[in-house]
Order: sequence, then structure tokens, then C-alpha cells
Amino acid sequence: MNIRVFATPREWTEDDVRGTTAIVIDVLRASSTIIQALSNGAREVVPVATPAEAGELAAKAGRGDVILGGERDGKMIEGFDLGNSPLEYTKERIAGRTIVFASTNGAPALVRCKTADHVLVATFNNYGAAVAAARSLGSDVSIICSGRAGKFSLEDFVGAGKLVEGIASQGAPLAHDGAQAAFDLFRYYRSQLTELVKNSYHGKYLATLGFEADLEHCAKVDTHPIVPALIEGKIRLPKSNGGS
Amino acid sequence: MNIRVFATPREWTEDDVRGTTAIVIDVLRASSTIIQALSNGAREVVPVATPAEAGELAAKAGRGDVILGGERDGKMIEGFDLGNSPLEYTKERIAGRTIVFASTNGAPALVRCKTADHVLVATFNNYGAAVAAARSLGSDVSIICSGRAGKFSLEDFVGAGKLVEGIASQGAPLAHDGAQAAFDLFRYYRSQLTELVKNSYHGKYLATLGFEADLEHCAKVDTHPIVPALIEGKIRLPKSNGGS
Repeated sequence: MNIRVFATPREWTEDDVRGTTAIVIDVLRASSTIIQALSNGAREVVPVATPAEAGELAAKAGRGDVILGGERDGKMIEGFDLGNSPLEYTKERIAGRTIVFASTNGAPALVRCKTADHVLVATFNNYGAAVAAARSLGSDVSIICSGRAGKFSLEDFVGAGKLVEGIASQGAPLAHDGAQAAFDLFRYYRSQLTELVKNSYHGKYLATLGFEADLEHCAKVDTHPIVPALIEGKIRLPKSNGGS
Repeated sequence: MNIRVFATPREWTEDDVRGTTAIVIDVLRASSTIIQALSNGAREVVPVATPAEAGELAAKAGRGDVILGGERDGKMIEGFDLGNSPLEYTKERIAGRTIVFASTNGAPALVRCKTADHVLVATFNNYGAAVAAARSLGSDVSIICSGRAGKFSLEDFVGAGKLVEGIASQGAPLAHDGAQAAFDLFRYYRSQLTELVKNSYHGKYLATLGFEADLEHCAKVDTHPIVPALIEGKIRLPKSNGGS
């Protein structure tokens, strides 16, 4: 099983992920938020690239029938119902609902993955379950770091390295430079993931907006043993891992 | 002094490097080759993005008056005089000559840097001199990893991390995720740079083409105490560091 890690959003094309299991990681915070929403009973999360597309989808579905979630610059978008803090996605707010989701980095990455055979959402919170899912699917793996406005994010690359450690066959050499670098960097940070998330550029930015609690939440490993999967434009929990 | 590291070629735009000292790193092999050529007395190296542009420049200058160097897929380009192995750029071949240079990754990165205040060429071979030059210029620094066909290269990112270690003020925190990750990864590989270069994806590829000796050459630190600088489209040695 080949494992590749794409460090930045413009490094990969739809051809690069074709036929593989794509795993989209956006530690701060889209992956964490999508996992939290589905864990708390949301029916599905529909990722869109822009707030305008979210509005169009809401108009078609009926504005009252969907929840609009997402952010620009870390803040809730005007006219939306929820931002991009996982802690906002409580059972009371989202159980049974369809969430149309427009985050800056993770949502567009998910939208672009449509050539992959499988598209999974992962982060520290669902590490073990994501590893098990990728291994059981058996295809080559493309781990996609969502980054920040097209640029490199430390926390996503280290999170990707943790996934590499879990997915790679023990002792097998890594044939891909991005996978090797992410894995090595994860080993460097292994015992200090919370500090890593807090000291990342985006972590520090989110703290200035008052989201310190999100940073603690997003750095936790294996709190959510589920693996959201994107199928025909909708992110749901497959029946095998907690969906219905 | 802010230090940023761009991990992949499409991560940065001309706006990102504007007003900074851009340091282009292509360990395997453009940086190493340009440094070797100027060290061995080449008059100047003119980077171009494509073999066709190299041909046009040669036609204008007079084909016999320039040396065409560069590669595609690691191999010399048809009709060129030299490939991209630093060991080909001997005094006998290139002293006093103008080299029009079309490598796949490093040359286009150099061409795109034109908005930077200063553009320097660096790699392990001229590490100490490049650090001293960047520090003495005093501007913010943009370290540009040339990568491989638009994608991440392990050896360039680790080389960038070594430059970060030298240029950053001791003890000052790094404000840029790419710079932090490159620095951390360099610390991981600090004592095994030759192995790193040999085990990188491109290193292994070059070995299959018979360029093992290049790998040893390109991994050596501080063998060439010079800093090529790109000024008005031409890479030369400024008088202060060995030029004339």
C-alpha cells in the first residue's frame, strides 16, 4: 500500500488522488468539527467551496431545512447558523439535521477529492478509527493536508505523520518524500501534540479569537471512534462505523 | 527578521516574496550546480523556465557564445552542452563562459523570484556563506524549496531547515509554520545529511541514472564559501563574495 502525504493544497491535482483512498485532514478545525457534528447525530454534512454555494444549496433545500456552518478568517459567516468550532455542534443544535459546511480550507479540499475511490475525514480525534478504515479499504492512500489559505500548516502535517505511522506497514520503507517528512516530524512532536496545536500559527490566531478550548479539543487523540466518509457529495457515517 | 519557508513551488506567489531576500534551494541539483559553475569561473548563469527559452536566448546571443545546461527528468536535454550534474561543470568546460540554464525545478523558481529585493542561491554546499549573506542583507527572508515537478522534496525542506537554524536569531520563536517544520525536520536529520539525500525520492531516482557521486557532492556542507545572486536575470558572484 503506497502512502503519500500532500503538504499543501496546491501540490495535488485531481489526477494525483484518482483511484486512491483520500484522507482529508484539517486539525484546526474542519475535520474536528465534521467529526463532532456526525458524532452528535447530524444526518450529513455537505461540504461546499464558498459561502455563496452554501447559500444556493440552502435556497434549493429550503433555508429552514438545513443548518449553514463554516467560517472565513476563523469567524462565523454572516447569515450562517454556526461557525467552525466543534464545541458549537451540540446534539441540541444539530441532531438529525443536514449541515451545509463552508470552511476556508477543509471544505474545498473535500470538494476537490471527487476522483478518489474513497474520501475519509480524519484528525487526531478519530485517529485509530481512520487508520483502521484506511487499512481495511486496502487502496493506496493520499493524505491531504488542508493547510491555511493555500499554505503549509504545521498541525495538519504532523497529524498526517501520525496517520502515516498507523497506516504504514511496520518496517516498510516510505516511498514518498511528503509521507517520510510528515512521519519524521510527527515522531519529533509525538509527546507534545497539545503544545504543537497551541503553538501553530493558526492555533495562536484562533486563541486571539477566544477559541482556546477548541485547541485542547482538537489535539485530543481517539476521542471519537468514527470515520466520516464523503459519498456523492455528502459526508456521513457509513453503517459500519456508527452511522445508520 | 521574519523567516518563512515555502515547502512546495505552488505555495508561494510573487506577492509573497516581494520585498524580501529570497533564497532558492534545490539541493538535487540546480543550486549545487550553479554554485559549482560559478566557483569554477563561469561568468554568469542565466536561468530560464524552459528548454525552448534556452534555445531562443542562445540564438540571440550566438549559439557558440553560450553554454546550454540543464535537464529534464534528470537527463541532459537534447541539443544542450551540459546536463545538471555539478561534476560536469569543470573549469575546463565553463571558465569565463555564460551558461543558459534550464533545470526542471530550480531554474523556474529563480525566474519567478523577480519581485524579491534580493535573490540568493543556496544549498548545503554554501550553507555558511548563504547564512552570512542573508543576515547581512537584513531583510525578511523567504526560503523557497524548489521541490520536484511541483511537489514536496525532502532534501530541499531539510536544507531549508538548516538555513533557518543559521539565520534565525538564537532563541527567537519562529512565527511561520513552514519555517518551524523545516527547522524541526532538520534537527531530526542533523547528523545524517548524506543518508537523507541518498534516501530522498529524487536521490534514489538519480542513483538509478548513475549519479551516485552527485549525491555525495550535494550533501556536503560548506565546501563552497560563495553566494550566487540573481540580478537582472543573471546569476553572478557579487564582488564581496568571490566575484570580479
